[in-house]
Amino acid sequence: MKTHTQYLTFNTNDKIEFINITEKIKEIISQSQVKEGLCLINAMHITASVFINDEEEGLKKDFKKWLEELASSGKKYFHNLTGESNAHAHLKRTIMGREVVLAITKGKLDFGPWEQIFYGEFDGHRPKKVIVKIIGE
Amino acid sequence: MKTHTQYLTFNTNDKIEFINITEKIKEIISQSQVKEGLCLINAMHITASVFINDEEEGLKKDFKKWLEELASSGKKYFHNLTGESNAHAHLKRTIMGREVVLAITKGKLDFGPWEQIFYGEFDGHRPKKVIVKIIGE
Amino acid sequence: MKTHTQYLTFNTNDKIEFINITEKIKEIISQSQVKEGLCLINAMHITASVFINDEEEGLKKDFKKWLEELASSGKKYFHNLTGESNAHAHLKRTIMGREVVLAITKGKLDFGPWEQIFYGEFDGHRPKKVIVKIIGE
Repeated sequence: MKTHTQYLTFNTNDKIEFINITEKIKEIISQSQVKEGLCLINAMHITASVFINDEEEGLKKDFKKWLEELASSGKKYFHNLTGESNAHAHLKRTIMGREVVLAITKGKLDFGPWEQIFYGEFDGHRPKKVIVKIIGE
Repeated sequence: MKTHTQYLTFNTNDKIEFINITEKIKEIISQSQVKEGLCLINAMHITASVFINDEEEGLKKDFKKWLEELASSGKKYFHNLTGESNAHAHLKRTIMGREVVLAITKGKLDFGPWEQIFYGEFDGHRPKKVIVKIIGE
Repeated sequence: MKTHTQYLTFNTNDKIEFINITEKIKEIISQSQVKEGLCLINAMHITASVFINDEEEGLKKDFKKWLEELASSGKKYFHNLTGESNAHAHLKRTIMGREVVLAITKGKLDFGPWEQIFYGEFDGHRPKKVIVKIIGE
């Protein structure tokens, strides 16, 4: 059995930003030398997300608009009484999900034709980590 | 360590449709001969989902109605300016989730009394794949 | 390869309640003696959730209020025609997610600074199980 652990750090310019990390993940899978197994990728911060969707600019705008409708940054939140302003970011990340689990087959990411992996930031301007954990053989 | 990989293909009659795949997954787990491990099942298309809920007709109708309220097919979306009409399907699948990870114990799906696995289609009428990846011993 | 399986049972006082299970999960990981691997934790009931977020009272209130806005307990649901009253709980759990998958590194939960694991109950007052399944070496 083989395991492989790696950390990525992101510090976005925008408060809300999606970064395509598919190529980075492919490299890490290649380095792991795991031929058959599973790969967990999760945001280690609770106002960020790792999710899978389409690399299409319009759709990324739709996601941002939709998340603001579902969890508005302008509403009043109990969490923000602590001095924070990011309650909405916790909710947005909940919709998008914390983590993805991917299959590795014959040494490669076993993916559909349009699947792309994104780091989703909802409260940016500071460094945040993502873990990639691979197990298999 | 054992690993097992299998693909399922779905081509639904309806644009939005939920298909119960629990028995199919039980068969695949049995074929894998894995006694203790994890089973990843994910939609390989980004307008489809694999999720776990109840086999109850009323609830399935509730899910469809609710998803249409949260991500209406009748709204304007940037993604649809590309010629697509399925932006809402990307959003609906995000709510329902891309994947599930299941426990295998003593050679069987380790499930609660009402857990059932569904393939969720949100932009049907064409063949789409689901991967089942099992690792364990 | 090592695997470890354990079950937790929760019977909440409130219909909707979040219970922090992080310390319990750390103990189970320690008992498993797995040094490098993955840990799946999932609610075995379809009106409950396991999710990761912040241990902050205000935010927990925000989550409950927000979920009630997105999936109101006061609406009419087809599922409730069966005699149930918990359709809203199925929808709320869908937003929060069924499961989490965690990395184990050097024998410990590989977590970010604010990550905390919660059992989320949306239709309480009866015993419900959660499975913890660990695989690794």
